[in-house]
Amino acid sequence: MRFFSDNAAAVHPQVWEALKAADAPDAAYDGDALSARLDAAFSDTFGVECAALWVATGTAANSLALAALCPPHGGVLCHREAHIEVDEGGAPGFYTHGAKLMLVDGDGAKVTPEALAAAIDPIRDDVHQVQPHALSLTQATEYGRVYSPAEIAGLAQFARGRGLGLHVDGARFANAVARLGCAALDACRGAAALSFGCVKNGGMNAEALVLFDPALADLVKYRRKRAGHLQSKGRFLAAQVLTLLDGDLWLANARAANAAAQELAGACGGRLLHPVEANEIFVALSPPEAAALRRQGFDFYDWPAPPGRPGAARLVTSWNSDPTQVTALARAIRGL
Amino acid sequence: MRFFSDNAAAVHPQVWEALKAADAPDAAYDGDALSARLDAAFSDTFGVECAALWVATGTAANSLALAALCPPHGGVLCHREAHIEVDEGGAPGFYTHGAKLMLVDGDGAKVTPEALAAAIDPIRDDVHQVQPHALSLTQATEYGRVYSPAEIAGLAQFARGRGLGLHVDGARFANAVARLGCAALDACRGAAALSFGCVKNGGMNAEALVLFDPALADLVKYRRKRAGHLQSKGRFLAAQVLTLLDGDLWLANARAANAAAQELAGACGGRLLHPVEANEIFVALSPPEAAALRRQGFDFYDWPAPPGRPGAARLVTSWNSDPTQVTALARAIRGL
Amino acid sequence: MRFFSDNAAAVHPQVWEALKAADAPDAAYDGDALSARLDAAFSDTFGVECAALWVATGTAANSLALAALCPPHGGVLCHREAHIEVDEGGAPGFYTHGAKLMLVDGDGAKVTPEALAAAIDPIRDDVHQVQPHALSLTQATEYGRVYSPAEIAGLAQFARGRGLGLHVDGARFANAVARLGCAALDACRGAAALSFGCVKNGGMNAEALVLFDPALADLVKYRRKRAGHLQSKGRFLAAQVLTLLDGDLWLANARAANAAAQELAGACGGRLLHPVEANEIFVALSPPEAAALRRQGFDFYDWPAPPGRPGAARLVTSWNSDPTQVTALARAIRGL
Amino acid sequence: MRFFSDNAAAVHPQVWEALKAADAPDAAYDGDALSARLDAAFSDTFGVECAALWVATGTAANSLALAALCPPHGGVLCHREAHIEVDEGGAPGFYTHGAKLMLVDGDGAKVTPEALAAAIDPIRDDVHQVQPHALSLTQATEYGRVYSPAEIAGLAQFARGRGLGLHVDGARFANAVARLGCAALDACRGAAALSFGCVKNGGMNAEALVLFDPALADLVKYRRKRAGHLQSKGRFLAAQVLTLLDGDLWLANARAANAAAQELAGACGGRLLHPVEANEIFVALSPPEAAALRRQGFDFYDWPAPPGRPGAARLVTSWNSDPTQVTALARAIRGL
Repeated sequence: MRFFSDNAAAVHPQVWEALKAADAPDAAYDGDALSARLDAAFSDTFGVECAALWVATGTAANSLALAALCPPHGGVLCHREAHIEVDEGGAPGFYTHGAKLMLVDGDGAKVTPEALAAAIDPIRDDVHQVQPHALSLTQATEYGRVYSPAEIAGLAQFARGRGLGLHVDGARFANAVARLGCAALDACRGAAALSFGCVKNGGMNAEALVLFDPALADLVKYRRKRAGHLQSKGRFLAAQVLTLLDGDLWLANARAANAAAQELAGACGGRLLHPVEANEIFVALSPPEAAALRRQGFDFYDWPAPPGRPGAARLVTSWNSDPTQVTALARAIRGL
Repeated sequence: MRFFSDNAAAVHPQVWEALKAADAPDAAYDGDALSARLDAAFSDTFGVECAALWVATGTAANSLALAALCPPHGGVLCHREAHIEVDEGGAPGFYTHGAKLMLVDGDGAKVTPEALAAAIDPIRDDVHQVQPHALSLTQATEYGRVYSPAEIAGLAQFARGRGLGLHVDGARFANAVARLGCAALDACRGAAALSFGCVKNGGMNAEALVLFDPALADLVKYRRKRAGHLQSKGRFLAAQVLTLLDGDLWLANARAANAAAQELAGACGGRLLHPVEANEIFVALSPPEAAALRRQGFDFYDWPAPPGRPGAARLVTSWNSDPTQVTALARAIRGL
Repeated sequence: MRFFSDNAAAVHPQVWEALKAADAPDAAYDGDALSARLDAAFSDTFGVECAALWVATGTAANSLALAALCPPHGGVLCHREAHIEVDEGGAPGFYTHGAKLMLVDGDGAKVTPEALAAAIDPIRDDVHQVQPHALSLTQATEYGRVYSPAEIAGLAQFARGRGLGLHVDGARFANAVARLGCAALDACRGAAALSFGCVKNGGMNAEALVLFDPALADLVKYRRKRAGHLQSKGRFLAAQVLTLLDGDLWLANARAANAAAQELAGACGGRLLHPVEANEIFVALSPPEAAALRRQGFDFYDWPAPPGRPGAARLVTSWNSDPTQVTALARAIRGL
Repeated sequence: MRFFSDNAAAVHPQVWEALKAADAPDAAYDGDALSARLDAAFSDTFGVECAALWVATGTAANSLALAALCPPHGGVLCHREAHIEVDEGGAPGFYTHGAKLMLVDGDGAKVTPEALAAAIDPIRDDVHQVQPHALSLTQATEYGRVYSPAEIAGLAQFARGRGLGLHVDGARFANAVARLGCAALDACRGAAALSFGCVKNGGMNAEALVLFDPALADLVKYRRKRAGHLQSKGRFLAAQVLTLLDGDLWLANARAANAAAQELAGACGGRLLHPVEANEIFVALSPPEAAALRRQGFDFYDWPAPPGRPGAARLVTSWNSDPTQVTALARAIRGL
C-alpha cells in the first residue's frame, strides 16, 4: 500500500487509449495533428488565448519558463523550499545561464507580497547586485498548500508593480484548482507561464508549458529544441496532455486524489503539520509509530522532524489511490 | 505510402507490451527495477562493461556526451553535415556551455583521419585558439554511409593520439551494425560514449546514452537531471530500451529497414547519390519525376540538388516498411 | 626594429599625462567624473547620440556586443578569418552562452551581402537549425582592408533587411577612418555596437564599446560587471579613451601608422598579398628573404604561405613607428 | 577627507615607476618578461611552488578560481555576505556556468566548520540536489575580520574531508597577513586558489590569481582568455603586481592602512560593530552624528543600522591615508 509519491501512480486508462491511437504515421516532432491542437485546448481550458508546448518533465517546463522570463544576469524570487531551488539539480541555473534564485521564507512554502518586498527592497539598484526579474510560485505548494484567487491576484499585482515576470510551477496545479473550485485561470491569473503538471495526475511522461504571453512561445520553441526536449514522436506527448484536458479529466483525477487526502487528514487530527489542501499530508509520527504503520504494509517517506516533534512523514495520494487502502491507513493512523 | 522519415514509424508491438507491463508501481526517476537493468543489458550487448542512461531524444544523448568529453573552452570535431551541427538547434552549444564545433568535410558525411588532421594541424597550441578536445562521428552517417570496423579503429587511434574523446552518434547505429554484420562493439570500438538510437527503430520516446568509460556515468547523471531529462516515471523509458536489446530485436528491426532500402537502391541504379548502406536512399530525381512519384501516392522529402543534377530526394525505410509499398516504389522508380 | 604588432607599441605621452592626472580620489568603478564624460565624447565624435563603456580588451568589447545582439540560441555571421572566430579563445561562445558563429568567405577578410545571403538562404526557418541574429564586420579587416562607406551602407541595409543586429569590430577602426577620410560615423553607419580600439593606437589597457542603440547600454552594463570587467578604478580607463578622442588624437595616431604602412607597401610591389589600406602589410617573402631581413635587424611574424608563393610575412606599423626604421625596412625590401 | 573605500586610493609611486619602465616593446599578451616572472615571485612570497596570473579585477580572479574548482552542476559554499554573493553582479554564476552559491551564516562574515557542516549535512547525496564542490572564504572578511592560521587550518581540513576545493578571496589579503604577522602561506594554507588583491593596496588595475595547484593554471589560462581578460599589453599588469611583491611593499602598505584603522578603532569604543582587524571600521552612528562628521569634511558610506542601533557607517583606511586626517577623524568621533 504505497503512499510514497504520485509519481509512482499508474497511467490513466484513457491516456493508454490515446497513446495507442497516436501510433499512426504523422509528421515528426511537433508538426503532427495532435500537437497542433494544444494551443486551442489550453485556450479553451483557461478561457484566454494562450500557447502550450509539451515537454517531458516538470523540471524542463519550469526551467524553460524561467529562462524566458529572466536574463542570465537576473534573479528569480521563489520560496526557500521551492522545487526549483531544492529538487531540480540546479536546472534553473543551467537553462537561465546562471541567473540567481532569490530565496524567501513563508509558512507552508507559500510566499507573500510582504516577504517578497522584504527580500527585494534592500537590493541596491546598481550593477553590483543581481536584480530580480521574475517570481516563481508553486500552486499547490511543496507542502500541499493552495493559494486562493485573491492571494494569486495580490502576488500578480506585486509582480507587475516590480516588473517581475510571473511563473507558476503547477506540478500539482490540478489539485489546486480542484480544491479551489474556481476557474482554472483564477488559480494562476497574471502568470506569464504555467508549468501544467500531467505526470503526477494520470500521464506517462508529458507535461505542458502554458504561455499566457504567446509571444514567448516562439522563443521557448527554440529553447526547447536546444535543450533536447523536442521529441521526434511528439504526438505521444500531445496525446497524453489532450486526454487529460478532454472533459476535464485532469480535474476529476485531482478531485479523487484530494478526497483521499482529506480522508487521511481527518484521521490525523493534531498530527497535521500543514493544513491539507491538495494531495499531500505532512504528519507528525514518532519513529515507533512510523514503524508500526510500515509493519501494517503502508509505505511512505520519512520527513525531517519539525521542532518539538519526534518525527514526521509525508503521505501522498493520487488519482488512483485505492479507497480501501486509504480507509485502512486512516484507521491505522487513528489507532496509533 | 510514407518514406519521409523513420521518426514517423510505428512503435513495435513488443515495445507496447513492455510499456504496459511497466505500468505498475515502482520507485520514481531511475530508481526502478527496469532502469537498474540497463547497465547489464548493454554490457551484454557490447561484451564490455559499460553504463547506460535513458534519455528522451538523440539530441539530449549527443549533447550530454559532448559535454562530458569537451570543456566549455574546447572544440569538438565533426563533419560539416553532422546532425549535431546542422539539426539540433545549437544544443551542443547549450550543453557544453559554448564549446565550438569544428567542421570537417568528407564524402557521404564520413570523416577520415587525414581530413581531421588537416583541420587540427593549423591550430596554434595557445590560448588564443580553441583547442580540439573531442571527435564526434555518426554511425551510420547522415547520408546512410557506414564506417567499417577498420575505419572506426583508424579514427579511434587518431582520436587517442590527439587526446580527443570519441563520441559516436548512433541514431541509426542499429542499421550500421546490421549492415556490417560485426560485433556491436566493433562498430564503435574506442568510443567513450555512444548515442544508441531506439526511437527510429521501434521505440516510442527513449534513447540510450552508453558510456564505455563508466566513470563518466556519474557526471552525466547529474547533468541529465540538470537538463530536465530525468523523467519521474523512468521505467517507461527503460522498458523500451530493454525490449529492443532483448533477443537483439534492435538488429532484427534494422535488418528489415536495411533490406527495404536495398530493394529501393537496386531500382535506383545511376540515380543513387550515395552508396546505400543503411536505411536512407539519396536519389537524383527531377521535379517532374518527383511529382510523378507523389501522384502515385509516395511521400518523401526533397533534397537539395547536387551539382549537375536537376533535383534530388531522400527516401527512408523503417523497421515496419510495408514490403508491398517498398516493391511498388521500386517499380515506380524503375518506371520513371 | 620591431614590426611585430601594434600591441607592442608604446603608450602615447598624452595618455601617460592623463593617467597621472586621473590619480586623484574619485568615485569607484564607473562613477567617476571621467567615465561620466564618455557618452558625450563619443556622441561628439560620431555626431549622433550614443553610449560608451570602457573595457580592458577588444575581446571583451566584441563579446559583450555580440551577447547584446544575439540570443544564446542564435547565430552571428562573420568572416571565416574574423578575430572573433580565430583569435579570441572562444570568448563569443562564453559571453553569448553558446551562440554559433556562422562563417562566410571573402577576399581580404571582407564579407559582401552576396556572400552573406548565400550563407543564410539555405537555413530552414525552423527550430532545428540555428537562425542568424547578428552580423559582425571588422573595420579595418584582419588583412588590413577597409570597407568604404558605400560598402558599409550596403551591409547595414542587408543586416536590417534580414533582422540582424550589426556589430563592427573596430580594433583598428582609427586606421580605417584615417584611410577613408570620411566622418567617423560613415565608417560604421548602421551598426548597433562598435568595438572602438585604443590599445593598438596609443592606449595602455582601455578599449571602448560604443552603443549606437543606447537602450543596449543598460543591458551591457550589467553584463560588463558580471564578466568581471567593471574595474574599481575605472577612471584610469576613461582617461585613456578620452585622451585619444580629444582633438582627434586617435586619427592623428592612425594616420601616422597608415603612412608608415604606405611607405612599406610602396617598396613591396608585386610582393603584396593584399592592398594596403590600414597599418598591416602582408607580403610574400621566401624563407631566405625573411632570414635576410631579420639579419638586418627587422622583426616580424611569418605568415602562412599563400598558394604559389614560397612564404609570407605580416608587417605591422604603429602610431610611433620610427620613420628611420620604416625607411630602412622599405629599402631592405626593395633590395631583396 | 575621504574614508569611502580603498578603491579610491592613489596608485603607489613605485607602481607608477614600474608602469613607466614597462613601456618598452616586449611580447604581447602574457609573453613578456615581466609576466614570466610572476610564478617565481609568488613562489618566493609563499614559500611553495605556485602559479600566478594577472587579471584586471578581483571579481575576475574570484570567478576564474571558482570555475576551476566547481563544475557547472555543483555548489560553492560561502558566507551569506561574501562579496561573491552580494557584490559581483552574479559573476560566479557566469563563469561557473550556473553553479549555485550555498550560503552560510557567521559573525563578521566568518564561517566555521560547524556552520558549514550544518549547511551541507542535510543535502541528500543524489542528483536531485546540488552537491557542494568548493568552499570560498574571504580573508580579511567583508567586515574586516581575519581568520587566524589555526582557523584557516581547521577550515582547510574540513574542506579536504568533504572533498571541497578551497578558494580564498584575498581582496584584502595583505591586510590580513599584516595583522596576523604570520607567513603569507599560513593565512591561506590549504587553498587551491587565492585572489591576491593589489588594486586596494597601491595598484592601478591589476590583481593576481595565485594557484597553489599549478595544474589548474593551464586550465585557467584558457578560461582567462575566453573571458576577455588576457590583455594585450599584459606587461603593465605584471609590473604592478611585481612591484607590490618586491621588498614586501604589499605588507608595508597594508600595515599603514591597518594602523590608521586601529587609530580610528581606538576612538570608537563601544560604537564598534565588529572588532577591527584590518582596514575597515564598522561603527554605530546616529544620522545626526553622521551628519556632524560630514559637516567637518569627513566622507564615508552609511551602512544598514544593526538591531538596536540608530544607524551605522563604514570607514575604510588605505595605504596612503593621511595621518593628519585620520587623527582628525578619530578626534571628531571621540567628540560626538
